[in-house]
Amino acid sequence: MTEKESGSVLQFAPFQSAVDEGFWHRLSSLKLNKFGIDESPIPITGFYSPCTNSRVSNHLSLIAESLPPEPSEQSSVTTNVGNRNRCSVPGILYNTNTFEGFHALNKQGLLKAEAQKVWDDIHSGKAEEDCAVLSRFLLISFADIKKWSFHYWFAFPALVLDPPATLVDLRPASQWLSLDEAESLSAACNEWRSSSVTTDVPFFFVSIASNSHATIKHLKEWPSCQQDGNKFLFGFYDPCHLPTNPSWPLRNFLALIGSRWNLEKVCFFCYRENRGFADLSLSLIGEALLSVSQGFPEHKNHICSGWKDTHLVPNAVGWEFNRGKKVPRCISLAQSMDPKRLAISAADLNLKLMRWRALPSLNLNILSATKCLLLGAGTLGCQVARLLMAWGVRKITLLDSGKVAMSNPPRQSLYTLEDCLNGGEFKAIAAVKSLERIFPAVEAEGVVMGIPMPGHPVPSQEEDSVLQDCRRLQVLIDSHDAIFLLTDTRESRWLPTLLCANSNKIAITAALGFDSFLVMRHGSGPISTVTDFEAQDMRTLAAKMGNFSLIDGDKEQRLGCYFCNDVVAPIDSTANRTLDQQCTVTRPGLAPIASALAVELLVGILHHPHRICAKAEFANSTDSGSIEQPLGILPHQVRGSLSQFSQMTLVGHASNSCTACCTAVVLEYRKRGMDFVLQAINHPTYLEDLTGLTELMKSASSFQLDWDNEMDDDDCIEI
Amino acid sequence: MTEKESGSVLQFAPFQSAVDEGFWHRLSSLKLNKFGIDESPIPITGFYSPCTNSRVSNHLSLIAESLPPEPSEQSSVTTNVGNRNRCSVPGILYNTNTFEGFHALNKQGLLKAEAQKVWDDIHSGKAEEDCAVLSRFLLISFADIKKWSFHYWFAFPALVLDPPATLVDLRPASQWLSLDEAESLSAACNEWRSSSVTTDVPFFFVSIASNSHATIKHLKEWPSCQQDGNKFLFGFYDPCHLPTNPSWPLRNFLALIGSRWNLEKVCFFCYRENRGFADLSLSLIGEALLSVSQGFPEHKNHICSGWKDTHLVPNAVGWEFNRGKKVPRCISLAQSMDPKRLAISAADLNLKLMRWRALPSLNLNILSATKCLLLGAGTLGCQVARLLMAWGVRKITLLDSGKVAMSNPPRQSLYTLEDCLNGGEFKAIAAVKSLERIFPAVEAEGVVMGIPMPGHPVPSQEEDSVLQDCRRLQVLIDSHDAIFLLTDTRESRWLPTLLCANSNKIAITAALGFDSFLVMRHGSGPISTVTDFEAQDMRTLAAKMGNFSLIDGDKEQRLGCYFCNDVVAPIDSTANRTLDQQCTVTRPGLAPIASALAVELLVGILHHPHRICAKAEFANSTDSGSIEQPLGILPHQVRGSLSQFSQMTLVGHASNSCTACCTAVVLEYRKRGMDFVLQAINHPTYLEDLTGLTELMKSASSFQLDWDNEMDDDDCIEI
Repeated sequence: MTEKESGSVLQFAPFQSAVDEGFWHRLSSLKLNKFGIDESPIPITGFYSPCTNSRVSNHLSLIAESLPPEPSEQSSVTTNVGNRNRCSVPGILYNTNTFEGFHALNKQGLLKAEAQKVWDDIHSGKAEEDCAVLSRFLLISFADIKKWSFHYWFAFPALVLDPPATLVDLRPASQWLSLDEAESLSAACNEWRSSSVTTDVPFFFVSIASNSHATIKHLKEWPSCQQDGNKFLFGFYDPCHLPTNPSWPLRNFLALIGSRWNLEKVCFFCYRENRGFADLSLSLIGEALLSVSQGFPEHKNHICSGWKDTHLVPNAVGWEFNRGKKVPRCISLAQSMDPKRLAISAADLNLKLMRWRALPSLNLNILSATKCLLLGAGTLGCQVARLLMAWGVRKITLLDSGKVAMSNPPRQSLYTLEDCLNGGEFKAIAAVKSLERIFPAVEAEGVVMGIPMPGHPVPSQEEDSVLQDCRRLQVLIDSHDAIFLLTDTRESRWLPTLLCANSNKIAITAALGFDSFLVMRHGSGPISTVTDFEAQDMRTLAAKMGNFSLIDGDKEQRLGCYFCNDVVAPIDSTANRTLDQQCTVTRPGLAPIASALAVELLVGILHHPHRICAKAEFANSTDSGSIEQPLGILPHQVRGSLSQFSQMTLVGHASNSCTACCTAVVLEYRKRGMDFVLQAINHPTYLEDLTGLTELMKSASSFQLDWDNEMDDDDCIEI
Repeated sequence: MTEKESGSVLQFAPFQSAVDEGFWHRLSSLKLNKFGIDESPIPITGFYSPCTNSRVSNHLSLIAESLPPEPSEQSSVTTNVGNRNRCSVPGILYNTNTFEGFHALNKQGLLKAEAQKVWDDIHSGKAEEDCAVLSRFLLISFADIKKWSFHYWFAFPALVLDPPATLVDLRPASQWLSLDEAESLSAACNEWRSSSVTTDVPFFFVSIASNSHATIKHLKEWPSCQQDGNKFLFGFYDPCHLPTNPSWPLRNFLALIGSRWNLEKVCFFCYRENRGFADLSLSLIGEALLSVSQGFPEHKNHICSGWKDTHLVPNAVGWEFNRGKKVPRCISLAQSMDPKRLAISAADLNLKLMRWRALPSLNLNILSATKCLLLGAGTLGCQVARLLMAWGVRKITLLDSGKVAMSNPPRQSLYTLEDCLNGGEFKAIAAVKSLERIFPAVEAEGVVMGIPMPGHPVPSQEEDSVLQDCRRLQVLIDSHDAIFLLTDTRESRWLPTLLCANSNKIAITAALGFDSFLVMRHGSGPISTVTDFEAQDMRTLAAKMGNFSLIDGDKEQRLGCYFCNDVVAPIDSTANRTLDQQCTVTRPGLAPIASALAVELLVGILHHPHRICAKAEFANSTDSGSIEQPLGILPHQVRGSLSQFSQMTLVGHASNSCTACCTAVVLEYRKRGMDFVLQAINHPTYLEDLTGLTELMKSASSFQLDWDNEMDDDDCIEI
């Protein structure tokens, strides 16, 4: 810019941006929960106010409310209208998915598009109706939510006058005005700013009558005022404190004045405040000359109606400098954030990202609300707990009676050597501490207790405490949504299986052999299919289960539990086991695989419309029904072998003679409660009599079991 | 026992046992490493010495050397012969596999069997030749190696005289003998004890001539001495200090004297010492009457030659009391052991138990000696490291350039929130610390560095440092035995694949998609099949590889590497990835499964006779060759899907156009070294030209890839 004869080129102090952390937090949340990979531009709002201090300029600020409300919030209440410190500036945000995308944005094009809007609003008259649109801004960003760092760049599009305006005079308003005029203008300004209707209207004009009385008027009043002979000042809220320059908002105002109102000589009023009141010695008044005939393209071409044509838009400038350089800014919030909060948002991140593309129907709310009870905190229990957390499950209870032994840490992934010292910490306690170290927001609980088992008769003096354990287990199962059976003996799974069948709870079993495993979900409880059971209970149950059992209506198709294939009641399997039969003797790779499948099975059940009643599905089979689940198939049983590197899905239906889940057993339990349990514990053959297994065995003494049986012989896992 | 007219019933102070911790340690080790489930009785040796203190009795002690040597030790040198404090007592150990087995042992039967041996030795004359066999002992035990606790029970079989011997007189030897006799006996005893030939001969007789001169003689001399008219004392090393009773060893001695030598009146000499010398005021001399005619069954029946008949063996007693009760003892060593040592033995335990029955051919030495290099310490790296430790691998190096981020702990099982604070610890460092907390004897190392990648061109000022990284990687790969490729991008696997192919190292890749995975072992390097390559190198290589490639002789059958299916060189895949494409977006269950299979694959390779050259095997197929491996099949590739709960084994042979492992690439690398690597990094199309892929693509531009390709698109895993 070169100097002109009668004055210097009018120069403007640029807008300065300031972004509150809250803005980035909400942007991250919206990106994760709402926008996903959608890169559409987002309308946002910036806020500024007139300069309020003789030594500091005000910024254009972005705060959380600059963004649309989060899905979880109520629809945004526009509390900003009438806030004297928050004059709105309409803005637009281009947030890219990648860093490369951020750099590849067509910055000149985006700026031009915003300038076009300003230009259009000037010439459509919209700017006179709502002068806030005269200042616009543009924000491009890449939000690296993983690292909590944000790359961004502001632009404040300003239409370029060509040739530039010439500054004839610039002085503090108090010097430019007479004392009377100044007093009157001060009063008018204070009134304007104190009214909630006008306080955030940043552009206006001042009409000063010959009696020195100053009046502030809306821009839309200009056409009717311009001929009244008064002095006019074109005023705007000036965020800048410098005595030497007006600031950025004046640029587009001058464009309006010059191109819309065709004035060649403009007195502008940079309104500034101190301690909340108009300060006319801080405020400036200047006189500028606009070359209207050459000032704007359409004037050059003398096509006054041509200003709507895109190619006629004047050039625009306005990318913000970063310490004197034309480069983007970057802010990292990781340091300033509370570690626990960071951990929570980071953990959520991985999960929410799945919904962007891979699994949009993933229901993280169901997962985080599901209460999981893990029976056993050994090799399987540790791994299942870890994987539940990785899937976003937050409520995890671990039950185990054992202490951490020296041989545990290499395989039981929640424990370290420290947990083994001084006799060993209880596993249930150590596991909870470990989970909290991994993810502090987990709601984990440890329960130190054993599970009463059939075939382990109870001496009469211990009867009370065993019954207490039974009742405690019942309460635990009833207060959880999904139960994992991860204990090391067959018989310890009996009571939980019965209680789950009775309460119709999701039950998932994982059991290991030396190099083979079984992972299965138990079928629904039998009572919902018993037509002659108390009607009231039936209705309650059916309602709870969404009537799926009634819809399916096929008694025979109820899926089996862990005991449904057996022809003998569970007995004490721990007696006479040599060290190598005590079940830590499994190939180390087995437990992680079985645990992973068990957890994936739960996630599948929770996402299936029929939940616990879902039929067994098979890979690429027609049996999987018409419903194609985004998570894939939901099998009943998965069996695998490490020696064959093979895996297969199987189905086993509920047995009418099952010692744990058949109607007779569940009805007997309902009728006799803990008496029944105690009898089963002390006399396992009682279960065989009750279920008819005794008869069955007599009639088919040569009955042979296949792989199932071989598997079950050593299904116990860890100590 | 009732008193007799002329005296009281002779009563004996029982033997007392003492077991050194070293005994239990060696027993545990032998059980684990040698005996396994074999419950055969084990010959052991106890040690005792005459009482050496007027206030304390000596024990029958078991020490480590009481047991056979461990397999790792040199064959036992019998350093105990001639040790004055270690008179041997032959014993036998019944160590059961289970606690129930321990209790179920037929204690009366076992005791009787030992008594039979004593009886046989008496009457075969063996006891006169080697009097140590007069005292025997029996030990039954159950070693709970898992808990380091030991249940055990000693028996010191003593033949019962019926009716019992009558004690006529019992006094300190110094009172019974004349002063001269006492002096002479003292001298004779000290001489006997100071000679290495006789010091550990615990039974003898003393002949006192009429001139008071005492001579000590071996039992075998008795037949020739009994008629010489001297006074005779039957002496034995008495471990007991009591002035009121002789101790246990006298019982079987009296049986010998009564039943073999038919004496009715016996003067016995309880030899005791003080400060290493005969102490005749502590030693006792007693006079006992044996009812020879009724004393033993064969005498009752007057069938003198009938004493070899089993049913004629006298009754035996001798089970040790435990605080006055007839119950076994139990000792726990866990508290007294060094935690690190306990951790090591506990970790070994799980593995060694596999060899008892499930997997006798498991070679734990190979596993513990194998040096594993893990490229990537993310979700896969953490899990692989844990599983390697669980398999007994002790030398683990983790390479990663990244730091632990907030989102990592829920999925990356070696990290906690603590590792994320203050910007995050380097993963390679945090992982090593974590491994050491789990198992302090691990030899883990962390290397913080990135892997140079094709398609990520190197600015010239960084060339030196990148080349340094390349060389460092080469050194690392050459100094390890097995390399796991667990990084998060395709291209970061290129250089390791090439270096492994060049050095013929075991390379195992694990790669994840959203819900599918690939785990594979790379084939052997190409050079061993290149006949025109320098002969010297060939011979060296062939020697290293045990000539398997020559035996196989089938060029076409070399197994492929991770890149063999590709028709394009690896390029920069990280640019332009949105957050959800940055590969943490996998189903959480996937990484544990893939990691487990990768580690099991390594264990399989290390146990296969052809190691890296082993052909691809399939489940239940005839292709698996004639060698049935105890670990099962050794596939080339395992691919699985969580959405289908399916898994399959595949084979892919090496491609002549592979950009990472084909002959042309490896030869070029050998020729040009790091220059070649740098060119490949800066210009990945160079690899396509070199391998002929460029030509291939031209000639088959419509070539379509199947699942492989789909998989490879998102094989990257964790950040």
